[in-house]
Amino acid sequence: MRDPSAPAAPLPTLLVLDAEPLPRLGRLTGRARIEHADESSLADRLPHADVLLVWDFTSRAVRSAWPGEGPRPRWVHTASAGVDHLLCPELAASDTVVTNARGVFDQPIAEYVAALVLAMAKDLPRSLDLQRERTWRHRESQRVAGTRACVVGSGPIGRAVARTLKALGIAVAVVGRTPHTGIHGPDELDRLIARADWVIAAAPLTEQTRGMFDARRFGVMQPSARFVNVGRGALVVEDALAEALTKRWIAGAALDTFETEPLGGDSPLWRLPGLIVSPHMSGDVVGWRDELGTQFLELYERWEAGRALVNVVDKERGYVPGR
Amino acid sequence: MRDPSAPAAPLPTLLVLDAEPLPRLGRLTGRARIEHADESSLADRLPHADVLLVWDFTSRAVRSAWPGEGPRPRWVHTASAGVDHLLCPELAASDTVVTNARGVFDQPIAEYVAALVLAMAKDLPRSLDLQRERTWRHRESQRVAGTRACVVGSGPIGRAVARTLKALGIAVAVVGRTPHTGIHGPDELDRLIARADWVIAAAPLTEQTRGMFDARRFGVMQPSARFVNVGRGALVVEDALAEALTKRWIAGAALDTFETEPLGGDSPLWRLPGLIVSPHMSGDVVGWRDELGTQFLELYERWEAGRALVNVVDKERGYVPGR
Repeated sequence: MRDPSAPAAPLPTLLVLDAEPLPRLGRLTGRARIEHADESSLADRLPHADVLLVWDFTSRAVRSAWPGEGPRPRWVHTASAGVDHLLCPELAASDTVVTNARGVFDQPIAEYVAALVLAMAKDLPRSLDLQRERTWRHRESQRVAGTRACVVGSGPIGRAVARTLKALGIAVAVVGRTPHTGIHGPDELDRLIARADWVIAAAPLTEQTRGMFDARRFGVMQPSARFVNVGRGALVVEDALAEALTKRWIAGAALDTFETEPLGGDSPLWRLPGLIVSPHMSGDVVGWRDELGTQFLELYERWEAGRALVNVVDKERGYVPGR
Repeated sequence: MRDPSAPAAPLPTLLVLDAEPLPRLGRLTGRARIEHADESSLADRLPHADVLLVWDFTSRAVRSAWPGEGPRPRWVHTASAGVDHLLCPELAASDTVVTNARGVFDQPIAEYVAALVLAMAKDLPRSLDLQRERTWRHRESQRVAGTRACVVGSGPIGRAVARTLKALGIAVAVVGRTPHTGIHGPDELDRLIARADWVIAAAPLTEQTRGMFDARRFGVMQPSARFVNVGRGALVVEDALAEALTKRWIAGAALDTFETEPLGGDSPLWRLPGLIVSPHMSGDVVGWRDELGTQFLELYERWEAGRALVNVVDKERGYVPGR
């Protein structure tokens, strides 16, 4: 028990980079000095903070605002699965711990991928077009059971996608950075995507994965293949995908993420043949912000108690390693 | 072994009511005298046929053309799961055996229902609308795992739907005519649809089920509920569904079947808020006609050999009973 006559330890400063409020922060009243920053004030405030919470995970401001030397937060948490938006070389080289929202998005994203796969197999976008034209036109659709998927990314999201597609009777191969029981290594990627009906990108964005879905890889896929990206937009060379769809190298695609977000109104991607565009929403089910807030508070309580954090990012690799 | 000197038994006459060809019939060369009928010639030809194959399962001509007395086919097979389009009282009262395509459509229809459920949960129709408008608008979507479905119809299609939804983590209750292990009886229907997030109609059309989804039933459902019909169109009182959607008694619906098919261009159903319309295609995956043809040939070989047929319809109940 703390000696009541001892001077109270100074409260840690929690700096929140936010655009939208996080109601659950009220639980930290009296346990942290909470400051807020926006992109313009971040650089000034970072040196005084003990903890940085990147609640506005669309911001890339941390990369430029991170203090090179001198005082800096000991811990940075981002309310996202991806960490590419904050991992600058100085942060990677420092002893600051980075954690992410591993776990929150797995099942929602897996369901979203299943929705896209089934919608494409059952030709649902075309049915909705015909409905708008009040036209009755029967077509044959595809059975998904017995088809083959290749899921690129062996983290919790990729593995949840694999489980859900398997539950629909799809034969799934998972490709990861390190071969493992049930996980294929990168050298098997081309062989696996060449025979897949569904290629699902769910990898972190790292120097190894940036632009990995390029003209050559779309050229390797079957003409009947469909491609889905629920990882970061920059995994895909968008011009190469546009060409692959226009030239019918592949049968269709769905992108939930883009190199530049929001996607501009003049982007050709909105109107590519066979492409479904959605606004980076695959993991965002009702209650997701609350879940992200609760997850941060649980981590904060560990940190406050001096216990080891979980969801710790390997800053060299650019993701949380291990199963 | 047949005595080669005995006179050959006359070939049975197989009458095919068809609009499209059935290539696999070639396998019956020398084993059946194959005649074809369309709706206008059916009544004349029926009395001379031993077997009737209803290949054009959209036709209702059998009901009116069926001979009341006198010679008639001993066996009628329909290349469809539903038999309501041919079961007239005279056929029901006769000793003619009726078989159906039980088994062919189960898994495709289950996948189709999963596609609709996930598309509605993930707000996919709205994403496609926004894509057409080149508008980036993030929304929250629904998690399907942990939601509740009530599947009405405990035949192979309803049970396949239940299995597939369960594989997505949905809690499923199945309602059938006769309570059974894992099957609820009709007296539990209202209680179950009142708490369901998804109500799936997959029942045969009989005197008991015609119009069962009426204003009262839509009124019992939750405002957040969505309704899907992959059974016969006449299970649903279409005007009542239109009212329920317009007045937001329920959140959405998807109809793959209609009281009158094809749905006329002037039907208000094409443009109801929250309604997905598709042209009776839920079970029709690539290869379905071939599978239906193969199924008939297997039945024909049983019949030819004097063995008991399978998929035999209970003509009083209007479906193939049993599990």
